[in-house]
Amino acid sequence: MTHRPISRYPVPSLEDLPEDLRARILAVQEKVGFVPNVFLVLAHRPAEARAFFDYHDALMEKEGGITKAEREMIVVATSSANQCHYCVIAHGAILRIRAKNPQIADQIAVNYRKADITARQRAMLDFAMKVSTEANRISESDFATVAGHGFTDDDIWDIAAIAAFFALSNRMANVTGMRPNDEFYMMGRLPK
Amino acid sequence: MTHRPISRYPVPSLEDLPEDLRARILAVQEKVGFVPNVFLVLAHRPAEARAFFDYHDALMEKEGGITKAEREMIVVATSSANQCHYCVIAHGAILRIRAKNPQIADQIAVNYRKADITARQRAMLDFAMKVSTEANRISESDFATVAGHGFTDDDIWDIAAIAAFFALSNRMANVTGMRPNDEFYMMGRLPK
Amino acid sequence: MTHRPISRYPVPSLEDLPEDLRARILAVQEKVGFVPNVFLVLAHRPAEARAFFDYHDALMEKEGGITKAEREMIVVATSSANQCHYCVIAHGAILRIRAKNPQIADQIAVNYRKADITARQRAMLDFAMKVSTEANRISESDFATVAGHGFTDDDIWDIAAIAAFFALSNRMANVTGMRPNDEFYMMGRLPK
Amino acid sequence: MTHRPISRYPVPSLEDLPEDLRARILAVQEKVGFVPNVFLVLAHRPAEARAFFDYHDALMEKEGGITKAEREMIVVATSSANQCHYCVIAHGAILRIRAKNPQIADQIAVNYRKADITARQRAMLDFAMKVSTEANRISESDFATVAGHGFTDDDIWDIAAIAAFFALSNRMANVTGMRPNDEFYMMGRLPK
Amino acid sequence: MTHRPISRYPVPSLEDLPEDLRARILAVQEKVGFVPNVFLVLAHRPAEARAFFDYHDALMEKEGGITKAEREMIVVATSSANQCHYCVIAHGAILRIRAKNPQIADQIAVNYRKADITARQRAMLDFAMKVSTEANRISESDFATVAGHGFTDDDIWDIAAIAAFFALSNRMANVTGMRPNDEFYMMGRLPK
Amino acid sequence: MTHRPISRYPVPSLEDLPEDLRARILAVQEKVGFVPNVFLVLAHRPAEARAFFDYHDALMEKEGGITKAEREMIVVATSSANQCHYCVIAHGAILRIRAKNPQIADQIAVNYRKADITARQRAMLDFAMKVSTEANRISESDFATVAGHGFTDDDIWDIAAIAAFFALSNRMANVTGMRPNDEFYMMGRLPK
Repeated sequence: MTHRPISRYPVPSLEDLPEDLRARILAVQEKVGFVPNVFLVLAHRPAEARAFFDYHDALMEKEGGITKAEREMIVVATSSANQCHYCVIAHGAILRIRAKNPQIADQIAVNYRKADITARQRAMLDFAMKVSTEANRISESDFATVAGHGFTDDDIWDIAAIAAFFALSNRMANVTGMRPNDEFYMMGRLPK
Repeated sequence: MTHRPISRYPVPSLEDLPEDLRARILAVQEKVGFVPNVFLVLAHRPAEARAFFDYHDALMEKEGGITKAEREMIVVATSSANQCHYCVIAHGAILRIRAKNPQIADQIAVNYRKADITARQRAMLDFAMKVSTEANRISESDFATVAGHGFTDDDIWDIAAIAAFFALSNRMANVTGMRPNDEFYMMGRLPK
Repeated sequence: MTHRPISRYPVPSLEDLPEDLRARILAVQEKVGFVPNVFLVLAHRPAEARAFFDYHDALMEKEGGITKAEREMIVVATSSANQCHYCVIAHGAILRIRAKNPQIADQIAVNYRKADITARQRAMLDFAMKVSTEANRISESDFATVAGHGFTDDDIWDIAAIAAFFALSNRMANVTGMRPNDEFYMMGRLPK
Repeated sequence: MTHRPISRYPVPSLEDLPEDLRARILAVQEKVGFVPNVFLVLAHRPAEARAFFDYHDALMEKEGGITKAEREMIVVATSSANQCHYCVIAHGAILRIRAKNPQIADQIAVNYRKADITARQRAMLDFAMKVSTEANRISESDFATVAGHGFTDDDIWDIAAIAAFFALSNRMANVTGMRPNDEFYMMGRLPK
Repeated sequence: MTHRPISRYPVPSLEDLPEDLRARILAVQEKVGFVPNVFLVLAHRPAEARAFFDYHDALMEKEGGITKAEREMIVVATSSANQCHYCVIAHGAILRIRAKNPQIADQIAVNYRKADITARQRAMLDFAMKVSTEANRISESDFATVAGHGFTDDDIWDIAAIAAFFALSNRMANVTGMRPNDEFYMMGRLPK
Repeated sequence: MTHRPISRYPVPSLEDLPEDLRARILAVQEKVGFVPNVFLVLAHRPAEARAFFDYHDALMEKEGGITKAEREMIVVATSSANQCHYCVIAHGAILRIRAKNPQIADQIAVNYRKADITARQRAMLDFAMKVSTEANRISESDFATVAGHGFTDDDIWDIAAIAAFFALSNRMANVTGMRPNDEFYMMGRLPK
């Protein structure tokens, strides 16, 4: 058994990072208790990393017509289709915590069509998956279907943008061989 | 959120089952601590259920060139490709226990190509996945590749037969909407 | 031109088989006039072979809402999609005989959507093919569609289980290179 | 059971055809003993029909580095991948006759990779199938592979052109619902 | 950068061609101002070339329920799906000229679903694309959908036949590495 | 014919934008001569737009082992596979200008395997396409292949990151129905 490194590319140490990235990462560490590997792996390229985390936070750190837990559902469903270790395992943990549900991430990762979710969440994930796998075929009838579940046009932008952003993220994680932190596997599985 | 039943088909109670099936199930319950739902769901058809469990045990309950943990790796990898809730979650639990490794099942379920496994296990899973997804293209060169990792012809039959048996199992679980027991989600995740 | 053996694995002689398997095979030989190769090829593993034939008979040797000929239609359609020599050619012969129709097997093997079948049989095959190729997407609307043609829930289990069983069977036949007996090619093609 | 007509489009009677097409068809009838349906179905459009049969004869009615039987193998393999009733069943009959082999057409239709053919024929069919299913990826290395089995550049044009012509033919047969004549099912199955 | 020849096969000079083919090609040259490479590339095989151009002209050089510009739309959409250099670039030029629209060819080549076309043209291209990519699944409901936009049965034959003919053409162009003439890139892009 | 708007979402006017975005867009307008629609379409969401353009510039506005023209080749090849109107047509224009080659964009958009590019560029595009379409299967052997053409590990990150970024971009453009400016169609097609 090989225990892979967290990236096939060099990983900078915190002290070697530009000040703003180091501060950003220390703030996450303070909050989460450890530094999620995605920060260190992508910090190999500081300019890209800044844009990546800005984009991520603009999409994931807000509420609105879609809850934070539901945003993570989109991440887990589309990242599973893209077979991305880091995103399924790390965001699966966040989903369990945000949804306060220890089973939901595994269910969605395996087959979201069979998961214990509402019809509205199912419609949200159907739209997200179509953006992820065949955006070239998205049409007004897809918008109408998802809007029929009460999503506004801006909610639908959110759904699409999260699926699109993780299309990027999954590819970078697969190319770098980004390894999820050990901590993620158990997070949110036991009652607090 | 809907909490789905364990099957979309009627599920017999233990007392209504033929004596042999009841005894078989009680023995499993004795050993595992609960009755895995697959037994109750498939017992809707006793004759098929007997054959199913006989087949399963002939393939999974033996050692040989392939360990019991490795057999479960084949189940998890191919069942994930088939998006089967029951098989990924239940056999993921068994894999964690048999491999004494709390991460291995999630890694293989998401992308076995990135999992912490040996080159030999990788070759085993490549062969199993080809049987699962395009057996019509299996050729002598596939046999030669896997044999090059030290598997005998009979080991290769085992690999193929497990992939083939779970091709059946995954389809029945998806059609019946077979629900994994809650117990499976946490099994093998914490040190004993 | 190479004339392939009936299996890439060793094939036991009848006298070397366990008594119950030998008796089972002799009974088939008595009825059919020859020993279909599937019996000898799979008898390489007696425990698996017993389960295989028990499962097969539980699904194929009964009538009900689906005739025996229709059961064979499911076998031929799904085995053709899986490009399985043995199952298309041997079960094509059985289908011709059971349906008393010398053309039906070839038509279904090439493209069941264009075959001379009823709308009800077409719906049955559509459901079976979905189980065979994307069971992960089977939903209640698929059940409703096929039920709309008069199939009961238990008929639908039969359809699904036959498709699932031959998912296993096709994979084992492709892996072993199972060769159909010469007799099958002409069976049922000429009026008695 | 519905017995479909030979085309979903109007079929001209022989007397209504332009003289040259009628003469061509009568010559075929004289030789084969009946009028293959493809002539009547496509004669709905005389100008296209003339070009179709000219093209067909230029490719199929010659020998060279590829025998007439081998040309029919290409037709059966690619037409099976395109699920074309008429072409698999009619050209399967011609293949049996030209190869003097009652099993070869069924074997190639189900899975040419498992058929009783030579390595050279296998390479020919691999090339033809790539032209049929992903010609956009044909490269010099594909040419080199097939040339390695003794095919000249002009033989390879023949292989490609037959696969390409039946890409057209299969589509027209599927669109028109072209029905094979009953006679084809048995042709070449019994020794003369 | 390699500047590829117009064909990987020998290309005949005009003087070496049979008289009828030479006359045909000179007539095209007279009209267009240059000899489109397809004529020279396919003239390597005169008998096939004659049938090819006869077929082409029977489908493309007529009006009817479908305009000549719309016929070229079918060519560009299906040839793009088949990734055929010659057909997309050469027929893209003809489409720009016939539609008097400098943008339409690029739009259809990239994604016809997003192009500036009418609903009727969209239905025409949906049908053509289904013939091109999965003619085995064409059914009466596809005919009904396209007929609902005012196409007659004979218009639909035209749509299907053009898609089918370019299935052949795209494959031959990809196999021969047929190079579009430089002239095609700019044709129809500037107002006359 | 419908002439579609540049986005199915509201498009802000320049004066309504935050100062930094307005300045950024005016700078582009100054340089290019018009405002490319992507700026206005994505400015509907300023925070996401800032991250998007930062990311874009970090990847596209640098030289290194890969020229700016080669970076655009990656955009055109992967965006064509994703059938993205805006990206193929707008970046096709930029590619023509940067490569000083009026044919290269159309060639790569249709089939990069047949384009007039070097073997090194072909290897670059093969790697980029694998990231775009099946990043889950990227392995060390893919890295070795592309490195064999002289690309450093950091060049390969560039290739992967451009493919990944346009995986996002193509999805957003397809979802918003982003329309390319009319100016792009002719840019770079005529000698200066």
